[in-house]
Amino acid sequence: MNLPGSSVRLVEVGPRDGLQNEPGTIPTAVKLSLIERLADAGLTWIEATAFVSPKWVPQMADHGEIMTALAPRPGVRYPVLAPNLKGLEAAVAAGARDVAVFAAASESFSRKNINCGIDDSLDRFAPVMERARALDIPVRGYVSCTLGCPYEGEIPPEAVARVAARLHAMGCHEISLGDTIGTGTPLKARRMVERVAEVVPMAQLAAHFHDTYGQALANLYAVMELGIRTIDASVAGLGGCPYARGASGNVATEDVVYMLHGMGIDTGVDLAALVETAHWICGQLGRPVNSRVARAMAPCDA
Amino acid sequence: MNLPGSSVRLVEVGPRDGLQNEPGTIPTAVKLSLIERLADAGLTWIEATAFVSPKWVPQMADHGEIMTALAPRPGVRYPVLAPNLKGLEAAVAAGARDVAVFAAASESFSRKNINCGIDDSLDRFAPVMERARALDIPVRGYVSCTLGCPYEGEIPPEAVARVAARLHAMGCHEISLGDTIGTGTPLKARRMVERVAEVVPMAQLAAHFHDTYGQALANLYAVMELGIRTIDASVAGLGGCPYARGASGNVATEDVVYMLHGMGIDTGVDLAALVETAHWICGQLGRPVNSRVARAMAPCDA
Repeated sequence: MNLPGSSVRLVEVGPRDGLQNEPGTIPTAVKLSLIERLADAGLTWIEATAFVSPKWVPQMADHGEIMTALAPRPGVRYPVLAPNLKGLEAAVAAGARDVAVFAAASESFSRKNINCGIDDSLDRFAPVMERARALDIPVRGYVSCTLGCPYEGEIPPEAVARVAARLHAMGCHEISLGDTIGTGTPLKARRMVERVAEVVPMAQLAAHFHDTYGQALANLYAVMELGIRTIDASVAGLGGCPYARGASGNVATEDVVYMLHGMGIDTGVDLAALVETAHWICGQLGRPVNSRVARAMAPCDA
Repeated sequence: MNLPGSSVRLVEVGPRDGLQNEPGTIPTAVKLSLIERLADAGLTWIEATAFVSPKWVPQMADHGEIMTALAPRPGVRYPVLAPNLKGLEAAVAAGARDVAVFAAASESFSRKNINCGIDDSLDRFAPVMERARALDIPVRGYVSCTLGCPYEGEIPPEAVARVAARLHAMGCHEISLGDTIGTGTPLKARRMVERVAEVVPMAQLAAHFHDTYGQALANLYAVMELGIRTIDASVAGLGGCPYARGASGNVATEDVVYMLHGMGIDTGVDLAALVETAHWICGQLGRPVNSRVARAMAPCDA
């Protein structure tokens, strides 16, 4: 393990995966300001929105406005979710230069969440991948439920590896492995990543862990020991959780950055600016700040 | 690393280290009920109170009542803090059969917290150790600020090793290494434990980490890889933090148990009963439940 001196690429998913799961309507101007603040704080990969039907995901209905309004910044990329050809075309028309698709490692979750089985969902990505290739647009693949499923419970690493391998074979440049319900623990996370790394190079894998049970940092440390160097996170732990009000979804970016900097690992992120952004967005959303680091680094509010 | 199949000894510090740092007066009956519930949940080492001057720690003024009221249970031990001879005699008179003393790895913290330097504080333990040996009472030694000090910042592992070695040489059967302000990260925790383990056998070391910055589980996992098998934790993360209202102090026992059970490690604890206890004590204290696991496992309160 050679962690100190190395660097980690953070993929900030708050504006998409985070806000998509927050209740209420969030003004487009707030979303844009959030993205700009995150870029100001030094994040260089910021998932900006999702080109999905407003019928299914009303929170992302302003995707066109968001992408059109975002001024390009050198070195900053704004990937968007684009799970079908219509979404891809709309995303590209609005200026997107990076897209993502998502599949599940659990058959039940796939059927309940996107209304089709795993294999069907992958088949449906084929035209998206083909068109993206023609446009020279890199595609990231998400795999959800890699460490547990709300319907099936434990998910075998083999099932994750199968989906990851197919996404990779279809042309995804990176596979993000999601612990969607946050039930993973370090040794399970290790075993899963070890198995997936047999079929997709470690350098093309990302860890996308949720902190619902407080396990995310321990799981991240465990898979970093294996060589994972790309981590998804969400400012302020945005993303909520269906199980308990105020419980966290995505691991908070500031918690991850604190751990990485403490290990001597470069992220390019200004932690103080990130913490300020966490407090700002929580104020906008009228929710308490949920990340340990943002709370610990805040001025005393007692 | 051979973690699955092994077991971890948990030292529950909520009734002492936790409640001592909670604001307000807590009725003795509530403290006793908490201790009984923790024992019912399967915890076998429960730090029950502190025999310190009520002038300095008014929250523990009922130490005599607590120890007198606690009915012995086979296999359950109730250590208490007893930093001087007077405290030790009072503790033993009230029925204590295990005691603990505490020192700091930081000279400034020692002076500000217990009004004397590190070496003086250790010298003052000599009569306590001697009397405890005569009474056949095992003594645990705490070392605070092992991963950072609010006054000095970084603390060299060497300084921690020096204090740990002295406590060990004085007869402490176990040295608990405290990350008092929770600023540690996994590689620092590893380096500190590696250094201390050169002078005290690993089996006699315990990790006592705070979760102020959300790092505790990652740090625990990192030192478990080295061989640490005794972990201090506090139900519901009781203990507060001077820096931000609601921010956590000690790592929550239920978060630790969730991680350990997920790794196939035995603790003897009934997680559901522990979570119920976390909610119960937070209700008694009128504070929100702060641990991820207790929140995630609660019935939806939205």
